[in-house]
Amino acid sequence: MSASDAPTDSAAYPVGARNRVKRRHDRGFYDHATVHRLLDAAALCHVAYVVDGQPYCTPTLFWREGSHLYWHGSSASRMLRTLAHGTRACLTVTHFDSLVLARCGFNHSADYRAVMAFGQARLVTAPEAKRHALVMMVDRFFPGRTAQLRASTDQEIKATSVVSMEIEQASAKIRAKGVADDAEDYALPVYAERIPIRTVIGAPEPCPRLLPGVRRPANLAGYHAGRLLEEAVSEAHALAYATPEAAEHHADEA
Amino acid sequence: MSASDAPTDSAAYPVGARNRVKRRHDRGFYDHATVHRLLDAAALCHVAYVVDGQPYCTPTLFWREGSHLYWHGSSASRMLRTLAHGTRACLTVTHFDSLVLARCGFNHSADYRAVMAFGQARLVTAPEAKRHALVMMVDRFFPGRTAQLRASTDQEIKATSVVSMEIEQASAKIRAKGVADDAEDYALPVYAERIPIRTVIGAPEPCPRLLPGVRRPANLAGYHAGRLLEEAVSEAHALAYATPEAAEHHADEA
Repeated sequence: MSASDAPTDSAAYPVGARNRVKRRHDRGFYDHATVHRLLDAAALCHVAYVVDGQPYCTPTLFWREGSHLYWHGSSASRMLRTLAHGTRACLTVTHFDSLVLARCGFNHSADYRAVMAFGQARLVTAPEAKRHALVMMVDRFFPGRTAQLRASTDQEIKATSVVSMEIEQASAKIRAKGVADDAEDYALPVYAERIPIRTVIGAPEPCPRLLPGVRRPANLAGYHAGRLLEEAVSEAHALAYATPEAAEHHADEA
Repeated sequence: MSASDAPTDSAAYPVGARNRVKRRHDRGFYDHATVHRLLDAAALCHVAYVVDGQPYCTPTLFWREGSHLYWHGSSASRMLRTLAHGTRACLTVTHFDSLVLARCGFNHSADYRAVMAFGQARLVTAPEAKRHALVMMVDRFFPGRTAQLRASTDQEIKATSVVSMEIEQASAKIRAKGVADDAEDYALPVYAERIPIRTVIGAPEPCPRLLPGVRRPANLAGYHAGRLLEEAVSEAHALAYATPEAAEHHADEA
């Protein structure tokens, strides 16, 4: 990290050439609170990585613990074989909030809240760290659920790879202003609007093969029909990391 | 393209090391119909590209015309400066359909429909091709809208860069099976369910500064509260490219 990348605020990610929001810099945020809030409100991310000069953009579930991001997959996948030995990656989360129809083509836009996080992605190999990650992979979305499940087998643990990336730099970029036309264009007889977009939970579908008497456990109540996915996911993250042990576990990993 | 990348079907993208679905290959599709349907149902994509060995994953609006993908942004943005001279990129679209809660941690999953498309991204510089792209950038989502707007200025056209990428290879990956537990686990008294996720349109918000008498035009009727975004976006694409001239325009570009 060069001198120009030095943090200017202890609660913000350092700003450098890699993560500085260049276009529309008024939309850029680097503080931990903003970056983490947007990350923790998402289940899905896209990870960019490079193999032999070819970029790949892979969607995956992920979660944050402290300043580390985690994701997983089969030990056979292309991404994980590439990341196994440590490789640069960029993990991006996008909350897509609206389509914006302005009075001219140029001002058509979208409202969104996005985070780009940069670091070195590497496999989690230490047994205790991997065991913890396999619990949080489930419990981060459904707090307490692992304790309600059939225990993982050694074969399952072996077949699951977990990747960890410490966030070296990150930026959030937010547009939330709807229609924003040039001053003189408001005098035109052109229709303009903001079309809101929401990602919501539908009615949960119980497995048709549940044993008689097996009821939906209370720890899933946050996932109910009509709720914004980001609300349920944010709430689950806060619950899952409410205990100091869970929140601080990532410190053991270095 | 090597011999092993040769197309085996005239209506499919060639399969090679770059786009072959390696993990869970039963989930992989390469035919144009599947790939294009998933692309055309989306407004948002994530583009991976590389600058000095560093991967970036950038969210952006995009659209498909024939076998080309298009996206845009300010001429000053990092992505567009990098892509200006032609560079490898991977454009990914993900439709996130559910969270799947199984009877063991290992079988927790998600339903999704994703496309990864590979090619060389480059700036559209030919004036007629750029003019056409700036129309379709709006009309692909809102057919006929450009004709209803204040015309673009030369300065606006200059300030907007359009990137085009011919799809050299692509793959679709689809999981749509909900809960899928190991046979013996169905005998366990563990609750399992599929939590559906939908991205929907909210109530359109007219600009508060509309002139008196300016009504919502009929060509926006497809965007109404409660509708799946992917339905509106798919329908708009079909309408926008219903005329042979629009559909065939990309052939002029080479």
